[in-house]
Amino acid sequence: MWGGRFAEGPSAIMREINASIPFDKALWRQDIAASKAHVAMLGAQGIVSAEDAATISGGLDQVAAEYEVSGVPENWDLEDIHMTTESRLAELVGPAAGRLHTARSRNDQVATDFRLWVRDAMDQADAGLEALQKALVIRADEHTASIMPGFTHLQTAQPVTLGHHLMAYYEMAGRDRSRFADARARMNRSPLGAAALAGTGFPIDRHMTARALGFDGPTANSLDSVSDRDFALDYLMAASQCALHLSRLAEEFIIWASQPFGFVRLPDALSTGSSIMPQKKNPDAAELVRGHSGRIVGCLTSLMITMKGLPLAYSKDMQDDKPPVFEAAGLLTLCLAAMTGMVEQTTFRTDRMRAAAELGYATATDLADWLVRQANIPFREAHHITGSAVKLAESRGVALDQLALDDLTAIDPRIDERVYAALSVEASVAARASYGGTAPEQVSERVAEARRALGLA
Amino acid sequence: MWGGRFAEGPSAIMREINASIPFDKALWRQDIAASKAHVAMLGAQGIVSAEDAATISGGLDQVAAEYEVSGVPENWDLEDIHMTTESRLAELVGPAAGRLHTARSRNDQVATDFRLWVRDAMDQADAGLEALQKALVIRADEHTASIMPGFTHLQTAQPVTLGHHLMAYYEMAGRDRSRFADARARMNRSPLGAAALAGTGFPIDRHMTARALGFDGPTANSLDSVSDRDFALDYLMAASQCALHLSRLAEEFIIWASQPFGFVRLPDALSTGSSIMPQKKNPDAAELVRGHSGRIVGCLTSLMITMKGLPLAYSKDMQDDKPPVFEAAGLLTLCLAAMTGMVEQTTFRTDRMRAAAELGYATATDLADWLVRQANIPFREAHHITGSAVKLAESRGVALDQLALDDLTAIDPRIDERVYAALSVEASVAARASYGGTAPEQVSERVAEARRALGLA
Amino acid sequence: MWGGRFAEGPSAIMREINASIPFDKALWRQDIAASKAHVAMLGAQGIVSAEDAATISGGLDQVAAEYEVSGVPENWDLEDIHMTTESRLAELVGPAAGRLHTARSRNDQVATDFRLWVRDAMDQADAGLEALQKALVIRADEHTASIMPGFTHLQTAQPVTLGHHLMAYYEMAGRDRSRFADARARMNRSPLGAAALAGTGFPIDRHMTARALGFDGPTANSLDSVSDRDFALDYLMAASQCALHLSRLAEEFIIWASQPFGFVRLPDALSTGSSIMPQKKNPDAAELVRGHSGRIVGCLTSLMITMKGLPLAYSKDMQDDKPPVFEAAGLLTLCLAAMTGMVEQTTFRTDRMRAAAELGYATATDLADWLVRQANIPFREAHHITGSAVKLAESRGVALDQLALDDLTAIDPRIDERVYAALSVEASVAARASYGGTAPEQVSERVAEARRALGLA
Amino acid sequence: MWGGRFAEGPSAIMREINASIPFDKALWRQDIAASKAHVAMLGAQGIVSAEDAATISGGLDQVAAEYEVSGVPENWDLEDIHMTTESRLAELVGPAAGRLHTARSRNDQVATDFRLWVRDAMDQADAGLEALQKALVIRADEHTASIMPGFTHLQTAQPVTLGHHLMAYYEMAGRDRSRFADARARMNRSPLGAAALAGTGFPIDRHMTARALGFDGPTANSLDSVSDRDFALDYLMAASQCALHLSRLAEEFIIWASQPFGFVRLPDALSTGSSIMPQKKNPDAAELVRGHSGRIVGCLTSLMITMKGLPLAYSKDMQDDKPPVFEAAGLLTLCLAAMTGMVEQTTFRTDRMRAAAELGYATATDLADWLVRQANIPFREAHHITGSAVKLAESRGVALDQLALDDLTAIDPRIDERVYAALSVEASVAARASYGGTAPEQVSERVAEARRALGLA
Repeated sequence: MWGGRFAEGPSAIMREINASIPFDKALWRQDIAASKAHVAMLGAQGIVSAEDAATISGGLDQVAAEYEVSGVPENWDLEDIHMTTESRLAELVGPAAGRLHTARSRNDQVATDFRLWVRDAMDQADAGLEALQKALVIRADEHTASIMPGFTHLQTAQPVTLGHHLMAYYEMAGRDRSRFADARARMNRSPLGAAALAGTGFPIDRHMTARALGFDGPTANSLDSVSDRDFALDYLMAASQCALHLSRLAEEFIIWASQPFGFVRLPDALSTGSSIMPQKKNPDAAELVRGHSGRIVGCLTSLMITMKGLPLAYSKDMQDDKPPVFEAAGLLTLCLAAMTGMVEQTTFRTDRMRAAAELGYATATDLADWLVRQANIPFREAHHITGSAVKLAESRGVALDQLALDDLTAIDPRIDERVYAALSVEASVAARASYGGTAPEQVSERVAEARRALGLA
Repeated sequence: MWGGRFAEGPSAIMREINASIPFDKALWRQDIAASKAHVAMLGAQGIVSAEDAATISGGLDQVAAEYEVSGVPENWDLEDIHMTTESRLAELVGPAAGRLHTARSRNDQVATDFRLWVRDAMDQADAGLEALQKALVIRADEHTASIMPGFTHLQTAQPVTLGHHLMAYYEMAGRDRSRFADARARMNRSPLGAAALAGTGFPIDRHMTARALGFDGPTANSLDSVSDRDFALDYLMAASQCALHLSRLAEEFIIWASQPFGFVRLPDALSTGSSIMPQKKNPDAAELVRGHSGRIVGCLTSLMITMKGLPLAYSKDMQDDKPPVFEAAGLLTLCLAAMTGMVEQTTFRTDRMRAAAELGYATATDLADWLVRQANIPFREAHHITGSAVKLAESRGVALDQLALDDLTAIDPRIDERVYAALSVEASVAARASYGGTAPEQVSERVAEARRALGLA
Repeated sequence: MWGGRFAEGPSAIMREINASIPFDKALWRQDIAASKAHVAMLGAQGIVSAEDAATISGGLDQVAAEYEVSGVPENWDLEDIHMTTESRLAELVGPAAGRLHTARSRNDQVATDFRLWVRDAMDQADAGLEALQKALVIRADEHTASIMPGFTHLQTAQPVTLGHHLMAYYEMAGRDRSRFADARARMNRSPLGAAALAGTGFPIDRHMTARALGFDGPTANSLDSVSDRDFALDYLMAASQCALHLSRLAEEFIIWASQPFGFVRLPDALSTGSSIMPQKKNPDAAELVRGHSGRIVGCLTSLMITMKGLPLAYSKDMQDDKPPVFEAAGLLTLCLAAMTGMVEQTTFRTDRMRAAAELGYATATDLADWLVRQANIPFREAHHITGSAVKLAESRGVALDQLALDDLTAIDPRIDERVYAALSVEASVAARASYGGTAPEQVSERVAEARRALGLA
Repeated sequence: MWGGRFAEGPSAIMREINASIPFDKALWRQDIAASKAHVAMLGAQGIVSAEDAATISGGLDQVAAEYEVSGVPENWDLEDIHMTTESRLAELVGPAAGRLHTARSRNDQVATDFRLWVRDAMDQADAGLEALQKALVIRADEHTASIMPGFTHLQTAQPVTLGHHLMAYYEMAGRDRSRFADARARMNRSPLGAAALAGTGFPIDRHMTARALGFDGPTANSLDSVSDRDFALDYLMAASQCALHLSRLAEEFIIWASQPFGFVRLPDALSTGSSIMPQKKNPDAAELVRGHSGRIVGCLTSLMITMKGLPLAYSKDMQDDKPPVFEAAGLLTLCLAAMTGMVEQTTFRTDRMRAAAELGYATATDLADWLVRQANIPFREAHHITGSAVKLAESRGVALDQLALDDLTAIDPRIDERVYAALSVEASVAARASYGGTAPEQVSERVAEARRALGLA
């Protein structure tokens, strides 16, 4: 490939460390597409003859057909997907193949291929997130009024509805989609034609190849074009945030499935058993989602470290851009599908949820709020009075609304019997009707909006 | 503060690990602003009396005035900026102060304060990036035709112009600005009124407080509102990418300042000397920028790890969101200013750059391209012929254009004397006039566009 | 300081980005100690006069006394702790102060100071871990036979004892101590005398200064001595592993304190309440430990990134070694103290633990094992039979030992009434007497060994 | 496998996310060895009959022989290497196979297998590091007196010898070996027999299986045994430090190979060319080592994140321990081999190194030291005088020793003609004879010690 100047071939270790074909063969579709766009342009501009252009284009189709059927051969001597394809092309169409690489370099070629691949991965993530959103909205709709304990610090805080809780993840998924969309728009420029680093002296038309490949236009600086891996980092950053969201949902399913909680019954189809303990039904899918989130963040870290301090333009370190992106994309796809399945198929044990909401003095805030409203006590004072009531109830081992009125008035004489109406979990939930709050009517409105946004009838 | 229920106060270790006031006092301006917006709304909605609202608002102004003059006191017993301010407010205005915390919680309060702070940090990053872009464009404009070696793999590749090289960083800075802008748009929703996690039963108007604080509207889900730290991660992600770009520019200045390169003379004002070696002039500012980029990425990693697997809603782990964001923001501001100063003040030694471009057979590609164009040889074959010419020149210790025509025709008879015109660095650079290429006319066009975009005459 | 060659002083941004005194003043004790060792050696070797050596040493004592009383002044013009101290020394003792920096450089000076600081931090971590181990062993000793559900996948797996569970963390803490000890032994070499990078021409005695500072000897290569930050990374790596262990224990306390579990009652002294919800008692200390573990890992990441790809010898990037180490050390000290307090003061609700162990078919494995032993059935078949029994019990909503014998023999006729004796949680725990198993006798033996190792009577 | 209790099989997504066989088949040798040790012990203890034990052991040998020839089949239904092997065993030896899993669980099985694998990886790293050390020492021995510029901040600092520079990496590699050795000693305990988490009721002998597998003994706590992945983290931490060292050496080779430096001529066997630029010879191997270091650190980050906050005992997240360890180990092996080859085969252009050492006023410190010694001037004053001399020389464009004596005495009258002897690079290097310094005699001593330590004659 560059034998003209070299006296000696690569050593065995060099062949192994240098070969990217074991992983960059994943780019074959993009490589063929970019080469076809390039040669069509070369022909249109008269840089190669129309005949040669046709020959090469036909040859590329043939190579693609072979790859489709038999996969991409892995020959380390051919280093990468670009040389592998060009070498096969030469076998198929002869010396004309040598004209394909006119006015380009592997530097702009791989930048183009990889961008196309990442753009597809962004689209795939968006589709996965949309499916997750649909699953969340459908289940939320079933449970706009199902009461469960809301937690902060994993301590019972205030009653909320299950629908409200699920819709929190709908919001996160929405931000994830917005992040992928922003990244896609930012990266959708074609580096093809930047050549090695400086542009080319051939009269190429970069706008033409950009259009052919679905880009919004060509990149504006050839040095930047071959050195830039922002698009890969943007992908990994969006994927990491998405994975972190999924890890939170996974954590909740794992805790909810634990016997002392028992808030959910997991689908057999997404659980596994134990080789030794016959009773086990483990939330493996959720645990793997949580674990995979660590690996996705690791992939991001890896590429950030690799890119740090690299001078312009292309350095071979940048070949280490693909493994972390490929790994993260594979994991993210699995995680999205697994959590979507989990949301769709889990049985929510709303009886146990509601029972748990009754415990833990979840409506103490409602007592404090009642004091503010009915007795015009400053909130800080109401908070203190309520704390005393909780302390008393706890020492007796009873719920707040099981305290006698005498007990309550002994704590503060401004309390009267109307207070009991405020202390049920239903009343508590219904009261929180501020915009975005957990009141069933609020949740129903949000769900309705979401259904419309997702095109769910 | 929550004494009603607690029998015993916090231990010394608890006070220390729990207190966030040592760092969250940085939020005081945001905390005052959000409290004023909140109390104005409470008054407007009749949740507190107009009189109390006015008292509280005036008191908050007074607290702010005190902070402005004397700083925020650090009393661990008051835990955080919210309690510190409310406590001082109570001293100033009496029991009415206790009404401020009606219909809110520290959970939505800190989410609001921190969002406002991060929004400011995004605006500051944008301003720093704009200044850097201006510096780059002005220096690039001086050097649209100054020739230097373009490197790939830090090996001399092809001649480029210094202006072209600097404009590559203009592109990166542009993407950075776009990333901060996207993040800002995504996060600009007000969590105020989400209360602890479930919303509130008081008839608050979240749209009013959102407007007052410059948000586009309220967030849609109260659980998400107090659990979400995407905005902080988005900031750290954009900051990390920006830092990675700066680390690349810093690396180049460090290498260029090294004696064997000698491409730049650094400004005294941004260099330091040695305590032992009297001749030293070290590129400290660039090295610190490179080093700081590691720390900024470390800050991102830190918060990603902290957020992983947290169940809804608020958990105290999320208090660890602020130190990495504050640290990264401080470092990023310094890095942007230092690199802007470096770009503005560095003396580019264009004589040494041009001399280096003459070495390393930088125009070998031009020979290959000439063969393709003049002799209609497929590029791959032209590449091989050129490799043989380079090998010969290297063995003789001469430049390509110092080989005799006989030597060249011995390698390939299709070469003729017109080839020498293609082998100068000026010809090489001028030839690369493809869109985004290094030809001075191309660079001038890009610079002119950039000047217009930045409002530089 | 290096004015001889510089025409112009540093710019404001340079002063700010360059100054390390805001953080490296933490090294003042080490800096004074190393300077005293150095000047004593210079005197002993006749490199400075005995009189000058005494003057300087006395002056250093005076500087130290001032720092002790008034703190270290933060003057950015003096850059760092070394120049700050030397400058004050010059004020106190006059020109002789200028002889202190003979035969050394700030490069070896800071390498020495920082190593001494990190060595102390390692010793502090060891002491914190020892205290944690003691707390664990004492509580484990109280609960060698207290039965709780053992979890895998957070699903009830098999009954274990609380003592056994706590002793798992004793093992982790033991590995942490071993890791710090290994790191300490590896780093305990003195870089002092490496000078800027090449050693010095003055007839210094590096063994003498090494001994004076408690090192095992001098480092063997001067370039490595000033470039090496392995000791800081070793510290951060050991700290990260320790923090990960603590994060696991913290997670367990958080889950155990959640109302549906209710396995622990947290000490008021290590909990906090809510500004809005009067009933809350939050496991803040545990959450902060979990959160801090993310930041400690972030500190490690930061320094790894900073060190990557730095050419020899010293680069200014390495000034970014201290903030992450200082931050991590401060956080680790807090985390160890907080978890030790938590272990010491938490009330374990053994009644609720035991009750939970009865649920979830925790003794299903015991049924399978019984079948293997009593009926000589291969384990895989026994596992399958037991699975059917669990399924039946679950469908009836009863525990395994509440199934009638008829039901069991209908599943497999080889079962007889002796099986019930194997199905109690006490029998299950007592049976697991393999080395390191959960049987109370095993746990008691491990506890006794640990008490001896820790010198607990 | 656990069908007794499950009504429904796993979904397609579950099969895919759950299957570890695609990567854990790498453990097959360790899995067979551990199973053989286990069944031999079961037989010796009479837990299975001698006949069954022999049958199973023979069957395992047969499975191993099949794997050796045909590889491990990848059937997702069999999930992992353990079930794959046991399933094939059952086909070969019938129901007796079902007795192999007595008194163990996949939890202790995989902990054992993976530990054995990591132990091998540690040994392999040690061997790779030893080879690198040998290469470094041999090349250093050739160049104990070859002068090159020593850099700090990549600025010419003082002359050093190439041998000294290479020996700095010998020191780093030595610390790396010590780190792997410490980790190996810490992890060499057998978890086999911990069973699922609680130990087992069968009368197993854990000491016997530990011995058979080369462990120093059994682990002491069964819960810890199945939850502990410290050994994997210890490996990744040692690998990361090693990779960071290699990244520094790689960075130096890349800079040294750049045309303006030209300090090295890289071996063809470890370089590659360009598809477009015929003259290129790129330091790909070094760049890939630098890039791979980012990925190795990413692998460590990944596993730290995965382990954070996992409650005891085994969680499925821990299945994500293997991919990062396998990836890092593969990359580290390549990196060590590549850098060893680079050190062995690179041509050092000592003429260019020496010429560069003459530039940059590298002996300015020698002038300052001369002033201290000959004129008894405090170092700080000598430093200032020298700075003025450098400034003058720089303004004239000459070296320090090209300044006339009059010029020097004009700066300070205490300078006399003897000073010129101190200003040659040879004199400078020879003078730095402090322990560990760059003087050739010092370097020769260190090399001789290293040769002895490595058993090089």
